[in-house]
Amino acid sequence: MKNILLASTSTVYGSSYLEYLLAELQLHFKNCNTLLFIPYARPGGITHDEYTAKVALAFAKINIAVKGIHEFENPVEAIQNAEGIFTGGGNTFVLVSQLYKNQLMEVIAQKLKSGTPYLGTSAGSNIAGLTIQTTNDMPIVYPPSFQSLGMIPFNLNPHYIDTDGTANHMGETREDRIKEFHEFNSIPVLGLREGSWLDIKGDSIVLKGNLKARLFRQNQQAEELESGTDLRFVK
Amino acid sequence: MKNILLASTSTVYGSSYLEYLLAELQLHFKNCNTLLFIPYARPGGITHDEYTAKVALAFAKINIAVKGIHEFENPVEAIQNAEGIFTGGGNTFVLVSQLYKNQLMEVIAQKLKSGTPYLGTSAGSNIAGLTIQTTNDMPIVYPPSFQSLGMIPFNLNPHYIDTDGTANHMGETREDRIKEFHEFNSIPVLGLREGSWLDIKGDSIVLKGNLKARLFRQNQQAEELESGTDLRFVK
Repeated sequence: MKNILLASTSTVYGSSYLEYLLAELQLHFKNCNTLLFIPYARPGGITHDEYTAKVALAFAKINIAVKGIHEFENPVEAIQNAEGIFTGGGNTFVLVSQLYKNQLMEVIAQKLKSGTPYLGTSAGSNIAGLTIQTTNDMPIVYPPSFQSLGMIPFNLNPHYIDTDGTANHMGETREDRIKEFHEFNSIPVLGLREGSWLDIKGDSIVLKGNLKARLFRQNQQAEELESGTDLRFVK
Repeated sequence: MKNILLASTSTVYGSSYLEYLLAELQLHFKNCNTLLFIPYARPGGITHDEYTAKVALAFAKINIAVKGIHEFENPVEAIQNAEGIFTGGGNTFVLVSQLYKNQLMEVIAQKLKSGTPYLGTSAGSNIAGLTIQTTNDMPIVYPPSFQSLGMIPFNLNPHYIDTDGTANHMGETREDRIKEFHEFNSIPVLGLREGSWLDIKGDSIVLKGNLKARLFRQNQQAEELESGTDLRFVK
């Protein structure tokens, strides 16, 4: 039975790394003494070691020891043996390329289906959807595929924002971009605002946090969903 | 000798489609009675016909007849026979996928090297760089490669904007994203603000319009370049 948290962001404005989620994470990882961290998304290009140290600092507050997957000789075994897994944000293309390179995509999917608790933030949440095609990130590396873990039957758009840029900027808004996605794809997309997360327990997919989320479906009007909504109906 | 205009955007705030460029385009395409339009980027998912009609309306003002490449049975021949070429904006991934599908990338590159006047706006400018890895667009389709025409020895970031979103949004700024690109790639990137364009004549690559452009190079401080600067030094 799946046991997965997918957060829009690791950090909300005015608060430290993972701070707003810590109480939730304490419950989520209550049976874990150790956590396997996947630092592959390398936000701002920081090293795997630097990123893992940052995460370890946050999880020390709830007495969970963190080890980066790059510290293991065999990453496949590291996944298989993990008590809990966290994939941090950064660049989704870099993350997915590295997951494919190390042949981890299927291994992680199997592991999560077996009930190992998982946390994703930003890019780490993005990869839980069917594809990474609704990421906000720049395609700074070329991955072998845009397919991802498929832990939910739709795609996510993390860091969802109602307008982009300044009012007189002619670039597309986030909503424009997601609508464009639906000109070419039928997969539903959930725009997850910063401070929101999905709590997946088995088949239920509940929207958590104080904010609404915005659901986009092909050929339908976008819809605002209240916190507490079970999204299992979205397919 | 190359004869290429690469604009950040087709449309500046408060003005109609291509309006701010029309005087320049009249000069640029002065020897053309007809223009071949590449509508593949399909902004907002509009059809090739709809997009071509919009472009035809703008070019009618300077007495140039426009035909979409999709109207030709053989798109390779359409390129080879074109008097002038315009690739419009939209989604860069969709555009590049279609160019590869129709085996046009190399044909267009050769044609432009021979001196056929070209205009690109937004995605149509992006593809003139070495790769599309600094596009702002969502990866809504999976192209066979991120390599593009290589008409300039660097990459472009069209619609460059100094800040993204609202001040308390935690998503990356445009500058953050380009810096992240340089953690993994050495290709220089020019952030081209809306209202700026590059005027390429042979080896010279002159920044035009009223605004500065922002040049990013790996392991160097970003730099503001004045309008009128010849960018041939950027490699």
